[in-house]
Formats: sequence, C-alpha cells, structure tokens
Amino acid sequence: MKSNNMEGPRIKELKVTPIAVSDPPLLNSVGLHAPYALRTVIELITDDNVSGISEIPGNTEIDRLLEKSGELIIGADPFQLNRIRKELFNRFGSTEETDKRGDNPWDSRKLVHVYSAIEVACLDIQGKICGRPVVDLLGGMCRESVPFCAYLFYKLKGAGGPLGFGVDPDATGWDAARQAAAGNPEEIVAQARAMMKEFGFKSIKLKGGVFPPQEEVNAVIGLRKAFGPGVPLRFDPNGVWSVETAIKYGKRMEDALEYLEDPTRGQEGMAEVRRALNLPLATNMCTTSFDEIPEGVRLWSEDIILSDHHFWGGLRESISLGRICQTFRKGLSMHSNSHLGISLIAMVHMAAAIPNLTYDLDTHYPWQSDEVIVGGRVKFEEGRVAVPREPGLGITLDHEALGKLHNNYKNCNLTKRDDTSEMKKIDPDWEFKAIRW
Amino acid sequence: MKSNNMEGPRIKELKVTPIAVSDPPLLNSVGLHAPYALRTVIELITDDNVSGISEIPGNTEIDRLLEKSGELIIGADPFQLNRIRKELFNRFGSTEETDKRGDNPWDSRKLVHVYSAIEVACLDIQGKICGRPVVDLLGGMCRESVPFCAYLFYKLKGAGGPLGFGVDPDATGWDAARQAAAGNPEEIVAQARAMMKEFGFKSIKLKGGVFPPQEEVNAVIGLRKAFGPGVPLRFDPNGVWSVETAIKYGKRMEDALEYLEDPTRGQEGMAEVRRALNLPLATNMCTTSFDEIPEGVRLWSEDIILSDHHFWGGLRESISLGRICQTFRKGLSMHSNSHLGISLIAMVHMAAAIPNLTYDLDTHYPWQSDEVIVGGRVKFEEGRVAVPREPGLGITLDHEALGKLHNNYKNCNLTKRDDTSEMKKIDPDWEFKAIRW
Repeated sequence: MKSNNMEGPRIKELKVTPIAVSDPPLLNSVGLHAPYALRTVIELITDDNVSGISEIPGNTEIDRLLEKSGELIIGADPFQLNRIRKELFNRFGSTEETDKRGDNPWDSRKLVHVYSAIEVACLDIQGKICGRPVVDLLGGMCRESVPFCAYLFYKLKGAGGPLGFGVDPDATGWDAARQAAAGNPEEIVAQARAMMKEFGFKSIKLKGGVFPPQEEVNAVIGLRKAFGPGVPLRFDPNGVWSVETAIKYGKRMEDALEYLEDPTRGQEGMAEVRRALNLPLATNMCTTSFDEIPEGVRLWSEDIILSDHHFWGGLRESISLGRICQTFRKGLSMHSNSHLGISLIAMVHMAAAIPNLTYDLDTHYPWQSDEVIVGGRVKFEEGRVAVPREPGLGITLDHEALGKLHNNYKNCNLTKRDDTSEMKKIDPDWEFKAIRW
Repeated sequence: MKSNNMEGPRIKELKVTPIAVSDPPLLNSVGLHAPYALRTVIELITDDNVSGISEIPGNTEIDRLLEKSGELIIGADPFQLNRIRKELFNRFGSTEETDKRGDNPWDSRKLVHVYSAIEVACLDIQGKICGRPVVDLLGGMCRESVPFCAYLFYKLKGAGGPLGFGVDPDATGWDAARQAAAGNPEEIVAQARAMMKEFGFKSIKLKGGVFPPQEEVNAVIGLRKAFGPGVPLRFDPNGVWSVETAIKYGKRMEDALEYLEDPTRGQEGMAEVRRALNLPLATNMCTTSFDEIPEGVRLWSEDIILSDHHFWGGLRESISLGRICQTFRKGLSMHSNSHLGISLIAMVHMAAAIPNLTYDLDTHYPWQSDEVIVGGRVKFEEGRVAVPREPGLGITLDHEALGKLHNNYKNCNLTKRDDTSEMKKIDPDWEFKAIRW
C-alpha cells in the first residue's frame, strides 16, 4: 500500500503502430470492405515499465493526432484521465469543428478515437497497478461473460466459397466479381447456421443497405422462418433508405425483428419512421454523440443507442451513455467495426460493467482471422466471451504478430477506410448515395 | 501485481454506528434543527483487515436496513459494486414503493442511503488496496481542491450569541426562545462576514423559507449590497412558496442571485416559475432521482441539479448525474445536510472528479463542531478543501471520538430527523405546511 501517489508512475512512452488486418469482401451501403481493415495499436509504457494497450480503427489522420498527443501524454499520471481528456480537447479541440462523424456507417471524428485509445491503455495500466481487471475499476461485473450476436454480411464470392467467414483463411480471399447471392435468403441462412455453429451465437444481425429493399426483407423473413422467434434478429440498412422506403419495408419486418437499425438518416427522419412502425429503432448513425442526445430524446428518434467506446470517447463515457439510456428508458446495444482481440476484450470489460446492456453485442470478430495478442484468437463459448479476471485488460500484445501486421500496413498502401473506392474498383459506375432507395 | 483476483479480499465485517452530533438551532421551512444531528458511520472490514468508512444521515429505519444488508455484504468482493447494488435492490427493492423522498428538504429514501454507505466504504477499501485516492478511481482530479460556499441560516439566539456558528462550541447552545432577528439583513450579513472570514468562502447561500418572503428577500438584497456582484449568492426557501409567491418575490431577486433554489414544489410548478423569471432555478427537491430526470428535462423544471451522493446512490451515480447534466446543458451543484468529515471528504473526492461541477458546493460543516476522524476538523483554505492524495478516502476513523458520539446518540433519544417536532417544542402551534406562503 503506497502512502502518497503524487509520486506514482508516469507515462514515459507512447507507441502508435498502424496495422492492416486481412478482411473479407463484405458489402455494405457505402461499398465494399478492402482486402485489409486498418487498425491502430497503441502502447503506453510507464517509467516503471507497466504497459497498457488499446486498439482503434486505423486512419493516418487519427494516427498523426495520436502521435501529436504524445506531447501531452508523456509524463502524465495514467490515473489522471479527466485531466488528460481536458488537455487533449483544449489542445486539439479547435479542429473539432471540422471533426464530423461523416456519412459513412462508421464514425470519422478524430478526438474521440484518440481519447478512447489513451483511456483504454491507461485503464489497462491502472488495472495492472491495482492488480485488478479493468471491469473492476468500472464498477465490477454485472455478468461473468458477454454475449455477442452472429453478424451476417452480404459478401462477394471469394476463394473461400460464396458465404464463408474469416475463421477460414480462404474466406478472406478477394474476388473481382460482384456476384453475391443477395436475393437468395438460403445463402444468408446458411451463413447464419455456419457462424452460429462455430461460435454458438444465440442471436443474429444482418447488415443490409446493399441490395434493393425487398431482396433484403426476403433475407430477414428467411432468417426468421429458419430460426423462429427464439433467436432475436436485427437488420441494419445503414441509413440508405428514404423515410418512405423505411416505413414501407419496415412494416414488412415488424413481426420478424428485435430492432431495426438506422433505417434512414437523421433524427427527424428516424423519428418519423418510428412513429409509423411498431418496431424499436436502434442507431449508431443518427444519435452518435452526447451533444445529439437531447434532440434525440426530444424527437424520440430511436429506442436503442448502439454504444462503441471508440466513437463515444472511451469506456467510462460509454458507461455514462448507458446510464443516460437507462434514465431515459432507451435501450443500449453495442456497435462494432472490423477489429481484433484488443478491442474485443475492451468491449467485454465495458459490457460486463453496464447493468442495462441487455442486448447481445455486435462484433465483426468472426470475419477476421489475424490476431495481435498472445495466445491468438479469442475463444467464444455459446456465443459469449468470458470477462478476463487477470489485472488490466488481461491480454498481452504479441509483438511478433504486431510486426507482421504492421508490415501488411506498410505494403498495402491504404491510409484510411474507403469502402466506396474499393467498390469502384469492382464496379467503376458505382457511386456513394446517402439515400439509395 | 496479483495474477488472479477471484481470490481477492472479501468483506468480513459491517459495523453500523449511529452517532449524534451537536447541531445549532438552525431554522428552516419545516422547523428547527434538533440539538443533535443524527449521522450513521459505516465501517467495512475485509478478511485481510483493510477497512473502509462512510457516513450517511442517521435514521433508525435506514440503520436497520443497513444491518440487514450485512447478509448480502459479508463475503462480497468490495470491487463488485454493480453486483452488490443489484442484490440490494433485488432483496429490498420491494419496499421501494413506499420508499418516498418525502416533503422535507432532505431525502428520506432508504435504499439510496444504504447503497451510498456501502459504495463509499467499498471505494475507500478499493483505494487502499490499489494505493490510490478514491478520486483516481473515479477518473482522476479535475481540480486539486474543491470550493465550498458560506451556507447561512436563520438561527435561534443561543448561548453563543445571536448568529454564531458551530466552530464556537457555545454557538451550538440551545435556547427555548424563538427570537431570530430574521427581518434584519444586518445580522445575516454579519453571519456571512464571520463565516467567510473563518473559512475563506467566496460565495454565499442563504437558507430561507422561514420568515415571510419579503423579509428574506430583504436579507438577500442586503447580502448583495454588502458583498457586490463578485460574490455569487444563492437563496433557498425549500419549496414553501406558491408559484405566485415564487414569481413575485423571485423577480425582486433576479439581479441579486446566481441561482434560486426550490422556490416552489414539483416539476410543474418549478417550470412555471422558471418561465416567468430571468433567473436560473436549482433543485434538490423537485428532481431528485434518475427516474424524475426525463420529466424534468421535458418540462425544464430546473437549470441546475444539486447532487448529493447520499441521495443519488453513491459517488459513481452522482458522477453519472453530472454527465447527464452536461449532456442536457443543465448545471450541477451539490447539496448538503449537517455532516462530519467523512461525508465532507467523500464529497471532495467526487466533486474533484466531475468536470462540470463548476459551482461552489453547499456544506453545513461550519455549523458542526464534532468530528470522528483522526486529526479532528477538516481545514478549509480560501473556502476550499484540498483533495486528499492518500489511498482511499485518505482519512482514518477516530474510534474514541466515534464512541463518544455514539454515547450522545444513545442518550439523546432521537431516532430520525424531525425538525417539525423540534419546532413544536418551541412553538406548540407551529405546523408543517408544504406551501406556507
């Protein structure tokens, strides 16, 4: 037991390592996943050589801001997160005016990513210093394992077969022909069966916004018929439907879905759809920051918010989002992008600490096959990941694997996620449309 | 660094010690402070003899529930606060239907008190195990010291002179004659000067609801004239004005006040007053729980919520309240009841961790003269209390002092706070009125 912590450890080093992770040719509303998903791995090391790690979506602009944030982080006490956040926002907040979420399904704001990266790594350090898992620093475990859902995607036919997923390395193969069997619910059901068998998931999410609405509704209905009401089912066209389209096709899924995610864009549009449907709406595109919550409450644009610690500014902020959802009788679920085990385990610690996170979480993890943590790929049992009970995040960075994935990054010439450009490589006439149908 | 905390320390003992603390004859809207304020001191002790302490308002019913909660607490991991809270509310929540806040200026709900007591003591233990001050487990310091305001009261003339305060033991003397010089702003100004000189406070709050509105408005105007706009000033009639009265007399204080606290009862009434006045309204009586926040937001019944970890269910819940206030552009300030140093220091750790707690906090501490912590009374410098940097709360229970104050409790025959009955001893015709003017 130390008697005075003004003399506690300080951060002496910040390492920012961009990596490129094999990713299968998944389709979405703005285009196509590139052959590699970019992630950035952050390591903070204290002057007494305790290290903390985190992982965020990769993007050279964010990486640069992370590197610049080193001037504020080096020398800081890893427990003084409130001070670190304030200094970050004071120093770099002027860029925030241009720091917009953007029209993509993912969030492009830089400061929330940067602070999330630093917060998670600092919490990892805190846990190691305290000898406690991160979840215990966040209020403790509401559950001992965290359930995820089977996250289905339309996908280009690749070397691994028409609808394989990334645990089979062949399934990440790249195919120049856009020939997904989208109108065919059987193939989506087959994908679900394969993924549920492998991981034990008990619920399903289908990413849509790719094919004309009725084709995707057919897939939803097909899933419902195949799995019945005992398997909660969600669908997400990523906001590319007009209000009218969302209402028309939403009605056809009222009996099938647990919730409908971002059927259209904007809080006003979502609120209009919600009034017309007997179906809870969820979002990670229309209410995506604390600043937007009051208007989202006023309009009641959604019933469920999908948190994501990379976009909401860290684990503690996401837990506060959970308290806000509980207070305003909104549901809380969790969004994901292509990610590796560091993000997965951070999600698990956070989800374990939120009493009202009662939905199975989204995760792209089954679609990736690489890993950067010692011991390799995280295991799912019955669709759940056990909350680590080791100090900190409870995982260790595999520097050899990190080096290999960093080499991928150097060789792949990608600087940010750009699904639209990837799609144009397949179909030069393809265009981004905020509202497609 | 421990490798597995499933084997971590467990709580082996819960000690609940009711105490009676000398309290001066302060007047308020529901009556008169008794000669003793009741508090309850909680000690939790782990099987490896780490102890954590906390302090809550004293009340035999709450004490009984605390004792009963021992069956859930003994054997628990002090880091598993989410689980402890859930079990408490599952076990005792059925009484919550009758667990109402009540019409008094203070909150009478039992479960929030009980959980607050356990949470603060567990956080004290956690800090000691981790070797870090509690503030560091809550996100770290937004400020190194926490500012309080001079909390003025109308007061019966006691042995210590007409308007002395509790640092002079004589000032806690008890006088059967109700002869406060309330209509006399000079005496209130003198009280403010004395308290500000002793403690260095930079802002003032006057507790009203005692005398006819114009007399109290005169005191507010007198304070404003004496101290000028550089000293923020608040006034709190504890909800005993009608909407009409609140608007009429509120208008007369628009230029004088930083905020007007609970001028009337209920969210509807507060919202009506707020629409009529050019003056921020604050509350610890109309929006007092997470359940009431949505309606408070919808009606905009107040601009500022006064947190209080004893009433909002602990430090983490109060910090979440802060995030809600920040999100909904409400201010956050902090309420107090008569208390000793354990509550004061818990308030300090929490206030230090809330970025948007930008108002000086309320505290009754200058009115008490007893203490139960080693080293005696907490020191204020320039109206501020430094955030302890020792592990846990950074204070140690003085068992001899505790024993003495527990003897006070056994001898005083008080079982709960009942300012109305106290007032009837002075003035048998006096009656509680929810709205007096």
